[in-house]
Amino acid sequence: MSLDRRQFLGSVPVVSGAALLATSPARASGPSTRMKLTFRPYTLELKHVFTLATSSRTTTPVVLTQIAYGDRIGYGEASMPPYLGESHDSATAFLSKVDLARFEDPFRLEDILRYVDELAPGNPAAKASVDIALHDLVGKLMGQPWFRVWGLDPGRAPYTSFTIGIDTPDVVREKTREAAEFKLLKVKLGRDTDKEIIEAIRSVTNVPLCADVNQGWKDRAQALDMLQWLKEKGVVFVEQPMPKELAADNAWLTERSPIPIVGDEAVQRLADVRKASGVYSGINVKLMKSTGMREAHAMITTAKALGMKVLLGCMTETSCGISAAAQLSPMVDWADLDGALLIRNDPFQGARVVDGKVTLSDAPGIGLT
Amino acid sequence: MSLDRRQFLGSVPVVSGAALLATSPARASGPSTRMKLTFRPYTLELKHVFTLATSSRTTTPVVLTQIAYGDRIGYGEASMPPYLGESHDSATAFLSKVDLARFEDPFRLEDILRYVDELAPGNPAAKASVDIALHDLVGKLMGQPWFRVWGLDPGRAPYTSFTIGIDTPDVVREKTREAAEFKLLKVKLGRDTDKEIIEAIRSVTNVPLCADVNQGWKDRAQALDMLQWLKEKGVVFVEQPMPKELAADNAWLTERSPIPIVGDEAVQRLADVRKASGVYSGINVKLMKSTGMREAHAMITTAKALGMKVLLGCMTETSCGISAAAQLSPMVDWADLDGALLIRNDPFQGARVVDGKVTLSDAPGIGLT
Repeated sequence: MSLDRRQFLGSVPVVSGAALLATSPARASGPSTRMKLTFRPYTLELKHVFTLATSSRTTTPVVLTQIAYGDRIGYGEASMPPYLGESHDSATAFLSKVDLARFEDPFRLEDILRYVDELAPGNPAAKASVDIALHDLVGKLMGQPWFRVWGLDPGRAPYTSFTIGIDTPDVVREKTREAAEFKLLKVKLGRDTDKEIIEAIRSVTNVPLCADVNQGWKDRAQALDMLQWLKEKGVVFVEQPMPKELAADNAWLTERSPIPIVGDEAVQRLADVRKASGVYSGINVKLMKSTGMREAHAMITTAKALGMKVLLGCMTETSCGISAAAQLSPMVDWADLDGALLIRNDPFQGARVVDGKVTLSDAPGIGLT
Repeated sequence: MSLDRRQFLGSVPVVSGAALLATSPARASGPSTRMKLTFRPYTLELKHVFTLATSSRTTTPVVLTQIAYGDRIGYGEASMPPYLGESHDSATAFLSKVDLARFEDPFRLEDILRYVDELAPGNPAAKASVDIALHDLVGKLMGQPWFRVWGLDPGRAPYTSFTIGIDTPDVVREKTREAAEFKLLKVKLGRDTDKEIIEAIRSVTNVPLCADVNQGWKDRAQALDMLQWLKEKGVVFVEQPMPKELAADNAWLTERSPIPIVGDEAVQRLADVRKASGVYSGINVKLMKSTGMREAHAMITTAKALGMKVLLGCMTETSCGISAAAQLSPMVDWADLDGALLIRNDPFQGARVVDGKVTLSDAPGIGLT
């Protein structure tokens, strides 16, 4: 099912938060001066089968949120690839507990998002869907996109990588040719066919590559050999080469690697940045891990202060989640924001990829247009 | 000389920046669409003689800045206690090099402040005077005070400490009585009379104390004894107990101290936060060290992510510098923002101390009223 964008945005949400039910005295001042959170499950249809080391799928469940305040609406999204443990059910259950009507002022991001975070452990994507909608709302109230509020130059937004899925050499060559727009290609490694895939891509293009191993390598000496080979093949960084639990092995590898090693599974939230220092040379920040834009901004700030590289990543997401992440993109070294390019039923328009580069709109909030 | 506030704010600045002289083509679009920096030396008259371990003085040189853009003006300040090496001459020489007309958009804080920082090494207070005026301008363009832009709750602003100067026990008792409004008193230690001063204060009040040693202790074992005695006397943290060069001794002390140890002289800018981790349990952030609000915000964010405490401090400053720092105060553990209370010729009104608490105004920018 593919919803027309206007139909979707204009429709009455089918599920409403505690905001509609609670009876706190603060409500007395009338609905137009209080925030109201609503949300709606949605299913992203992928253009191509998405293959990871352990699974394949053709859809991704998301929940789309709205925060209404006066005559403004902020839009948000939770994207929940099934292997990360969140789902339509878990996210709607979490969001049903969120009562934003208890807060008078949407600008109190610190207090509001602390309250949301403390409602239950986990649920990072569901929490992000509130954070993103709130940033969209507050940015609209200020009349500014967040990259401007944060003082950033949109021209410094990096090129985004585009992922070439795992497949036969012939199909990999075909996909690589189709991705000629992109200035950085990403390949998933960690299987027997790693070298074969790299060679297939290199038979078509000399564009820089990055590689995501998803914890797939188990022997650090073999991993170091592979890193040296990958550097020769023009790979510029590698994500999460070994299991996140093996901090000492990942640190050993980082110390010796000829290219930066980026922690992904090992780095979820702000508290993980400190632990990643000395273990990885960079971190992969994703809104759906970090609980949203506010904590992601703090993670990037902290990582840079610790001398670490930053990759800004995503899940398969609509242009809502991608545009929110893109607000941060002028701060980072590399971006992996191809999520909205992989789906066929994106109900939003916002930040775009133009000639491989993350391109921000001037629209306020998260920049949906 | 004491200038009336309106007189000062309305007067034509006597010194103008490179903006007035340069001839870049960008100027062609007319003065109203370009930023123009002007600045004026000013001398703060202290209410009381200010005594440090090595000097006494009755004035502090500052430079007051303005950035005009269209019909808006942002206000800033450089405060330059002489022992830190900046002066009217050094600051006006630095500010004369700053050409903001090369930037079209005041919101490009990252680019503009990087340009200012790279004009010359050092000059942190002069750089801060540009940063503060730019934040004031951009906040006014957004119609918001920065604490709101940063998502902070002004109710979380801490009590500020008030410094009891070094003096005879009788005078210390008298000063302590006069400071009854304050919920945290600060005392400068590092002399033979340390215990005498603490006892004099304690003969008058049981209010919590903090102590600034300004690198005055030379023997770590004696310092630890003193810290234990100070804890018994209700001292809640100590600043810079030993020389900043003795990182190992300061770390030894921090590990064993019964109260937090805050690095001040050891922590100037963002790059120092990482080095302070493991050496101190907290850092003292001051706009005149950090080069302004933007880097101070990053320092606080990073320190908190590293599990460190944060003290927000100041020099003797007008309400301009204090109001700028106060925007950050809801983020920190302790504030030492009594600088404007110590002068008799403050040309500004902004953040105030009410019943000992930092109290923010809702005025946009840095909150001058």
